[in-house]
Amino acid sequence: MSISTEKLFAGDPRTIARAISLVENYGSGSAELMKAVFPRTGNAKIIGITGAPGAGKSSLVDKLAMYYKEAGKRVGIICVDPSSPFSGGAILGDRIRMSTLGTDPNIFIRSMATRGNLGGLSRATVDAVAILDAAGFDFVIVETVGVGQDEVEIVKAADVSVVVLVPGMGDDIQAIKAGIMEIGDVFVINKADREGVLRTQKELDALLSLAHRPDMWHAPVVKTVATENKGIEDLSAAIDSYVEFQGSSSHSGDRRKSIALWRLTELLQERLLKELLNRNGASERLENLAAEVAEKKIDPYSAVEEILSS
Amino acid sequence: MSISTEKLFAGDPRTIARAISLVENYGSGSAELMKAVFPRTGNAKIIGITGAPGAGKSSLVDKLAMYYKEAGKRVGIICVDPSSPFSGGAILGDRIRMSTLGTDPNIFIRSMATRGNLGGLSRATVDAVAILDAAGFDFVIVETVGVGQDEVEIVKAADVSVVVLVPGMGDDIQAIKAGIMEIGDVFVINKADREGVLRTQKELDALLSLAHRPDMWHAPVVKTVATENKGIEDLSAAIDSYVEFQGSSSHSGDRRKSIALWRLTELLQERLLKELLNRNGASERLENLAAEVAEKKIDPYSAVEEILSS
Repeated sequence: MSISTEKLFAGDPRTIARAISLVENYGSGSAELMKAVFPRTGNAKIIGITGAPGAGKSSLVDKLAMYYKEAGKRVGIICVDPSSPFSGGAILGDRIRMSTLGTDPNIFIRSMATRGNLGGLSRATVDAVAILDAAGFDFVIVETVGVGQDEVEIVKAADVSVVVLVPGMGDDIQAIKAGIMEIGDVFVINKADREGVLRTQKELDALLSLAHRPDMWHAPVVKTVATENKGIEDLSAAIDSYVEFQGSSSHSGDRRKSIALWRLTELLQERLLKELLNRNGASERLENLAAEVAEKKIDPYSAVEEILSS
Repeated sequence: MSISTEKLFAGDPRTIARAISLVENYGSGSAELMKAVFPRTGNAKIIGITGAPGAGKSSLVDKLAMYYKEAGKRVGIICVDPSSPFSGGAILGDRIRMSTLGTDPNIFIRSMATRGNLGGLSRATVDAVAILDAAGFDFVIVETVGVGQDEVEIVKAADVSVVVLVPGMGDDIQAIKAGIMEIGDVFVINKADREGVLRTQKELDALLSLAHRPDMWHAPVVKTVATENKGIEDLSAAIDSYVEFQGSSSHSGDRRKSIALWRLTELLQERLLKELLNRNGASERLENLAAEVAEKKIDPYSAVEEILSS
């Protein structure tokens, strides 16, 4: 599959979609494509949004995208869907929002799912963000379901990370406190018309007052009711304030280097595994050894040594 | 660090703790340890428990562990904590439960955190489970915060996977439906004394009736109020029913093979990266290239090729 970079940089939706599919599958020519894309990146604001299922992230993302659009901006949205390692099926394939938001030429929305054992979702997501950046979108919003390790890394690779909470998480907010404090540049309490919003805000403020970030940023807390379009302007202002702060912070270089190191490591692992499995018969050997491990005929460590030594 | 396998197989807590630390750090001798551990595994029932933050998983796990203990069983608990890729700090280090549950000789509890860029949490977790299995625990419970990709894989590697929901997730249950249906062997609606439990149950039943699993298992839904110790016996019965079913199912071999394949792939990636970075100067080269990528002097794909070619 060859991609016209001319069309891509002009923002042609079909070309963008094909380019993302190419990097998603790590198809032939994807490395060349990304080499061409990379110098064109750096203009979009990348916003990562994460939070637990049930927090109303999708509504929030949709409303934020509409807000930007009405301000005359072009917005790309990447939804990252964890899915079973056994089926590799996408989760959000049937989302209604795809068809409503999707018809607007100034909004591009794309769902990315895990693809079984070989991973690479984080790398593919970061590449897709770069493609949208190079295609001239003013904002790229990356939305992840869940707060797992990969999701945290994906969100952290954004210019600004937004963590969405809902009232009533009190019981367990302790359990995620350190992680949440480090991940979020901006906090949202969504569904803020619900009972318990004051308690959640108090707990969050207490946790944030204990946080000490290397860049000394004090993360703002924004209250929203996404389904009623309330608080979206405040959220946009909070995002802007962090982006502005980061531009002036001496720590932004450290953050960019951490992100680059993570990205290179992900790419390296994927490349190394791919090269190994491309060797003659290596895939079959791996399959056979997996069957032997499953039947307890060999332990996984010895199996791996057998693959590496041959 | 040398581990006495004799003490380990006798269930000595300090030896178990040291063995888990060794595999967590992929320390020297960890592969040899795991080769010795592997033939002793297969006796424990492995229970994976996942769900969103706020679902009350920790209380549920604690109560289930107490239930098993009172039935005269020994229980190992592994808590998997996603944490920031930038600090690598553990999230649950200060959990009170550690000190309360931890004093019981029939219960072993251990928290495992991510360790920055190099990953390996899934591999280390599965190894820790095997160590507890070999150390003679009757049940090993793996609890993950979040529903990310790694967490799903960790939970799927268990004999039975329990997904914990709470009333009031309705708005977003659609968004995670396919994933949830595939991940869960048993579903729990915790905090079932809350408003909205009927609606959540209805939605879940509707989704489950659409699910088609290759093994034809119909996942039971159990209602609990973990903080009041309600429904724990029902949960135990539901877990047993799936373990029994799986033992008789012709599909259990497929599942074990999928798990083995995933585990080998994880191990392979970790090993390949480690070998590469152990080469003379490779770590420094990676660091330097990360700085260049951060400054946009080189694109990530070219940087990876430079590391691989040298």
